[in-house]
Amino acid sequence: MKKVVIAYSGGLDTSYCAKYLSKEENFEVHAVSVNTGGFSEEEVENIGSNAKKIGAATYKNIDAVSSFYDKVVKYLIYGNVLKNDTYPLSVSAERIVQAIEIVNYAKEIGAEYIAHGSTGAGNDQVRFDMIFQTIAPKIKIITPIRDKQLSRQEEIDYLKANGVDMNWEKAKYSVNKGLWGTSVGGAETLTSEKPLPEEAYPSQLKEKDPKQISLSFTKGELTGVNGKMNDPEKNIQILEEIANKYAIGRDIHVGDTIIGIKGRVGFEAAAALITIKSHHLLEKHTLSKWQLQHKDYIANWYGTHLHEGLYLDPVMRDLEAFLESSQEQVSGEVFVTLHPYRFTLDGIKSQYDLMNSGFGKYGEENKAWTADDAKGFIKILSNSGKIYQHVKEEA
Amino acid sequence: MKKVVIAYSGGLDTSYCAKYLSKEENFEVHAVSVNTGGFSEEEVENIGSNAKKIGAATYKNIDAVSSFYDKVVKYLIYGNVLKNDTYPLSVSAERIVQAIEIVNYAKEIGAEYIAHGSTGAGNDQVRFDMIFQTIAPKIKIITPIRDKQLSRQEEIDYLKANGVDMNWEKAKYSVNKGLWGTSVGGAETLTSEKPLPEEAYPSQLKEKDPKQISLSFTKGELTGVNGKMNDPEKNIQILEEIANKYAIGRDIHVGDTIIGIKGRVGFEAAAALITIKSHHLLEKHTLSKWQLQHKDYIANWYGTHLHEGLYLDPVMRDLEAFLESSQEQVSGEVFVTLHPYRFTLDGIKSQYDLMNSGFGKYGEENKAWTADDAKGFIKILSNSGKIYQHVKEEA
Amino acid sequence: MKKVVIAYSGGLDTSYCAKYLSKEENFEVHAVSVNTGGFSEEEVENIGSNAKKIGAATYKNIDAVSSFYDKVVKYLIYGNVLKNDTYPLSVSAERIVQAIEIVNYAKEIGAEYIAHGSTGAGNDQVRFDMIFQTIAPKIKIITPIRDKQLSRQEEIDYLKANGVDMNWEKAKYSVNKGLWGTSVGGAETLTSEKPLPEEAYPSQLKEKDPKQISLSFTKGELTGVNGKMNDPEKNIQILEEIANKYAIGRDIHVGDTIIGIKGRVGFEAAAALITIKSHHLLEKHTLSKWQLQHKDYIANWYGTHLHEGLYLDPVMRDLEAFLESSQEQVSGEVFVTLHPYRFTLDGIKSQYDLMNSGFGKYGEENKAWTADDAKGFIKILSNSGKIYQHVKEEA
Amino acid sequence: MKKVVIAYSGGLDTSYCAKYLSKEENFEVHAVSVNTGGFSEEEVENIGSNAKKIGAATYKNIDAVSSFYDKVVKYLIYGNVLKNDTYPLSVSAERIVQAIEIVNYAKEIGAEYIAHGSTGAGNDQVRFDMIFQTIAPKIKIITPIRDKQLSRQEEIDYLKANGVDMNWEKAKYSVNKGLWGTSVGGAETLTSEKPLPEEAYPSQLKEKDPKQISLSFTKGELTGVNGKMNDPEKNIQILEEIANKYAIGRDIHVGDTIIGIKGRVGFEAAAALITIKSHHLLEKHTLSKWQLQHKDYIANWYGTHLHEGLYLDPVMRDLEAFLESSQEQVSGEVFVTLHPYRFTLDGIKSQYDLMNSGFGKYGEENKAWTADDAKGFIKILSNSGKIYQHVKEEA
Repeated sequence: MKKVVIAYSGGLDTSYCAKYLSKEENFEVHAVSVNTGGFSEEEVENIGSNAKKIGAATYKNIDAVSSFYDKVVKYLIYGNVLKNDTYPLSVSAERIVQAIEIVNYAKEIGAEYIAHGSTGAGNDQVRFDMIFQTIAPKIKIITPIRDKQLSRQEEIDYLKANGVDMNWEKAKYSVNKGLWGTSVGGAETLTSEKPLPEEAYPSQLKEKDPKQISLSFTKGELTGVNGKMNDPEKNIQILEEIANKYAIGRDIHVGDTIIGIKGRVGFEAAAALITIKSHHLLEKHTLSKWQLQHKDYIANWYGTHLHEGLYLDPVMRDLEAFLESSQEQVSGEVFVTLHPYRFTLDGIKSQYDLMNSGFGKYGEENKAWTADDAKGFIKILSNSGKIYQHVKEEA
Repeated sequence: MKKVVIAYSGGLDTSYCAKYLSKEENFEVHAVSVNTGGFSEEEVENIGSNAKKIGAATYKNIDAVSSFYDKVVKYLIYGNVLKNDTYPLSVSAERIVQAIEIVNYAKEIGAEYIAHGSTGAGNDQVRFDMIFQTIAPKIKIITPIRDKQLSRQEEIDYLKANGVDMNWEKAKYSVNKGLWGTSVGGAETLTSEKPLPEEAYPSQLKEKDPKQISLSFTKGELTGVNGKMNDPEKNIQILEEIANKYAIGRDIHVGDTIIGIKGRVGFEAAAALITIKSHHLLEKHTLSKWQLQHKDYIANWYGTHLHEGLYLDPVMRDLEAFLESSQEQVSGEVFVTLHPYRFTLDGIKSQYDLMNSGFGKYGEENKAWTADDAKGFIKILSNSGKIYQHVKEEA
Repeated sequence: MKKVVIAYSGGLDTSYCAKYLSKEENFEVHAVSVNTGGFSEEEVENIGSNAKKIGAATYKNIDAVSSFYDKVVKYLIYGNVLKNDTYPLSVSAERIVQAIEIVNYAKEIGAEYIAHGSTGAGNDQVRFDMIFQTIAPKIKIITPIRDKQLSRQEEIDYLKANGVDMNWEKAKYSVNKGLWGTSVGGAETLTSEKPLPEEAYPSQLKEKDPKQISLSFTKGELTGVNGKMNDPEKNIQILEEIANKYAIGRDIHVGDTIIGIKGRVGFEAAAALITIKSHHLLEKHTLSKWQLQHKDYIANWYGTHLHEGLYLDPVMRDLEAFLESSQEQVSGEVFVTLHPYRFTLDGIKSQYDLMNSGFGKYGEENKAWTADDAKGFIKILSNSGKIYQHVKEEA
Repeated sequence: MKKVVIAYSGGLDTSYCAKYLSKEENFEVHAVSVNTGGFSEEEVENIGSNAKKIGAATYKNIDAVSSFYDKVVKYLIYGNVLKNDTYPLSVSAERIVQAIEIVNYAKEIGAEYIAHGSTGAGNDQVRFDMIFQTIAPKIKIITPIRDKQLSRQEEIDYLKANGVDMNWEKAKYSVNKGLWGTSVGGAETLTSEKPLPEEAYPSQLKEKDPKQISLSFTKGELTGVNGKMNDPEKNIQILEEIANKYAIGRDIHVGDTIIGIKGRVGFEAAAALITIKSHHLLEKHTLSKWQLQHKDYIANWYGTHLHEGLYLDPVMRDLEAFLESSQEQVSGEVFVTLHPYRFTLDGIKSQYDLMNSGFGKYGEENKAWTADDAKGFIKILSNSGKIYQHVKEEA
């Protein structure tokens, strides 16, 4: 019997696929979900139980939070990556790691097919298919939703007719949750002019009193929250829990999809935003001007390539090598105050702080150089401009 | 008698310079202030009256708000320039235009000397001197404050001894106001860890009820606020008045000075921040992916060169040509809601919106291409990755 | 009767297409060739006579040399564009202009179809189809060669059976000639290790005595050769005639195709190489350091996008605006000596030369600044490094 | 007695400095020369014997060829660095390593002073001083030539008067030789229009018969020449010996100095040019499109920063990390044919060759994808352009 591994979320589309493949196409269906930080234990249990109802031969949940952090999130922090200056690439980043876990699992159990529930109109199909085809060119990819373009009702009817009668009520918003943020799409995000209403966001405002917290970074990694040390992926979750009570990190991302159309999606990502902005502030104190300058170029492209599914391109390893190297002295504490819907960066403390070094201070008189040194500096710095102006006027 | 034009602010340093140059060095002192949006009429009058008390031969205030907008601010908006992702370059941008106005004035009145009150420890001396030396290499630059390194008390004593007895009480914070924002330095900004207190910011919170406003852009310029059309520089002032009641646009910039040390300065710039973020959102809807990508590079360097005083380098004209060209279709309305201390970007409306074009929509089924088209696309997009992986495994 | 415009070269593939479309698919076939500098009058006549033999309803040759120069070649010179530091993009650049001319012609005569003879394995299909689909989304594209994948013999047999009995002997190398160079593919270029033999190149060595020539540039355009002024596109042709007698400008380009595979192709492009290198030398004398630095980025991407068929993306206009602006002072003479198989750049003369400006000279004592100025300059330039080292050692 | 380490070349300037410092300033003079590949054993002996004649307390030659290769040359090859597309940075690169060796030697022997013979008009003073000040801020720098601006005759007279009567005949050209090339300055290079005459170049044409050689690269390093394996720095010397008989690698570099003026210098660098161009060709076959694209940015800046003396900025380590990572599969043979004054790159052979992978070949029919796949690819690749055009026309 032909084995297929299906990327299974427990929702209508992947349930339809699972049923359809086992019944109509005679596949042995192995359902797998990959947890990149979005599922609670209870949700995993539900997904598993749905899988069985549908008739999957096996179900497995792969815990990929640490692998997600190590493979991708770490570098997004090193690079302060916000796509179009806004979006922490929450979903783009997850898909890559999910695809890798799925294809590895398929290889492990000897499946010759992988199925997923993406449509033909989005980014996810590209990210999934590219990873699958690249790592396992011999495994065939099956995508019933993309191929058949059924309506929700047709899927529900089919499932019902085949003895699967669950509650498939369509949520108003399609929500995707993970370690690095939650995306929220639907209704208003399909327009260009309307914001998402308050209630569309999963985390509602619960705390109103401002509170200062401290974040510890060690070589660019978030190693502590409020002085308590932990694994970085754990710290991100701890920070998220503290900060989402303030309804922090909401915004709408407008961007270019891999298939050339513009897309708009809401998100909330308190921990991602606070971590990135805090990390960036620490870098402004500890990196050289040229490190900051070139990191921008590197990180911008790291985000773009990741977004477009090019995670396996060898250039990504080269960009990661740059980013890793740049973090050598990015260690210290960052102080952040949480307010309803926003946060402020208060300051930092670091043994690598290049600002408070006993050297000359900005705007203050100092003994590291004289007025004449400064004048000599400016005179020679002006050489090229003076020559240019002189030549232009003479010509 | 030797003529000197002095960049005069009415403060202690430039008052000392003016007195010192006329009395000790026998100069005919021509005081000039350049208003780039920071002075009220009353302040201009005060500066003028101080100038006369000090003994300046003439005093002139140059209104440079429009020239500031045309020469610099316009391009900062086109480029969404925020230095280190934070600072709208409020002061850096002003200094350039002030220097140009001053040197032109000096040429006009036939002065052979220009004096300014900068110290030897900051950016301003570099910006001023570079512009002066480049445009007018024969005019000599005089900088008593940089050269003599006097204490405040020594300056006050000297002025008093020479019959100038004004109130020179030192403000806790040094504040610089202009069209594109107000900088606030001192006390906490000299540390790395402390934020500025609420009261250090010039604009205090006065409005608490959220309010939606609309901004109209025409080819990248802010041509209207709430549907009322006006000159862009006027609109920036109107927007500032509306928004600073919400205490929006406060932050602290940490950056590299031209002289190689790190500096930290607070600022509030409600209009600058709202304009840039709104403009950027409109661009996400109206520019191609590649325009957005390359504009980042161009704008980042435009900001860096401007910050470092290279405004007269011919490359700036080339960068401006790129930016100008990119704004061809950046027209439309942006909807923004103001809240205390923050704002949200609600959405946009534009005839050039590339998102709502009757074409395929993100994540939705559509008729512009088929599932097979998408599969062909991804297959060929995967070619290079597949070949790389294949070669790597075989090797 | 359905009208089709076919991009017609007179070769086997497009002859097959023309016959096939008129006979089997009942099209009224309008053959068109676009001359971007590669066809002599005699060749145009031959193509036209072939077109009639095949049974085309009409044949038209469009002279696009000037439009090719104005739309593309000019900017390739401004940018000194050599793909992968080697290839002047001879063919890539032509295809764009040919596609635009063809689609405009199709619109003009009211054709609803365009046919071309590209295969499914190269860049040209992408360049053609993208331009066609973008400018005229309603015109349908027909590509029999890509679709049917016939062998040469099958095509010849079909033509013979339909009364077209011409000499279709396959040349050992496939040669494509145009204003901006001639590409040579086949045999050795399909391997990675073999160079093209001497005789594969169209221009053979005819002159052995070195000769110095002078090239005049005006705002970046080649306005004169050996002191004789002419249109730039004419000058390129004059230069080519002089220089290809020296067998100059041969090389092999190895690059990434749009479809993700590597390709290798020989070329000879004497005029292109000499023009670009001369222009670049003139720029080194007349542009500021920062213009040279950023032009590299801009030009590199201009070449990449052009190569990949993105000529119509609005970002190309923005890049062109930058390039155009940068040429303001790129005027003067360049002296070049031609030798067999190579040339040397001897020097330049320009009123905008920033090197000989009566200012300080490199390595020589001078009066523009003192030893103390230089020491002050270096001291302050060292500030950031000193602080970094100090902080690192203390930490 | 105060100890000074002097960067000693045996020439007039440094001889004057040595004598002057010991006699007039009462220093214990320790002369040191750093061999970065330019000195023969005989030359070292001469320098040493001169040092003693002048009265140096000690003389030491430091062999820094390997350290020069490891610290700098290796990365210049990884990055294919040619400043302004021409110059392998021969001298710039050496100075850095010489400065580091000198300052380490000064620390070792407990010297409180370092002296060098640079003038105030060039790059070398900046490179030397920046490295010295950064690594050893407490060591004082002495530069009599820069400070006193003596004529050659004044120096000769002083030395003669102090019993040093050597032959100080001024060479027509100032020549600087090292592992990575030889620079030649003087006479014609001080103009913009004249090339150096044949005889100015140290290596004259000795071989006329073309000869093919093979270069072996292992992870980007030149590990073999003609099949014989050796240390990379040794291979560069072997290659130089073979290739300079063909008078290969001559050119003139026109560039921007650190002090803002333009400079022009001739050079010959057969091994550097052949190594870089061969390495680059191998990369075109073995790196992904995106690696090639981003390497250009990285390498360009690596060269610029090195040229400007910023070797110790931490960003250089980050750029090196990127470059190192990118070389993982840059292994194989490159075939080069040497001709008088030029060379041709014939081809490559590599197990990592991405071109000959059994996958689809450029321009040939293949089985990796179908015509429909290609059409789907192009259709979706055209989406953004189509939407843009559509919106533009509707607006």
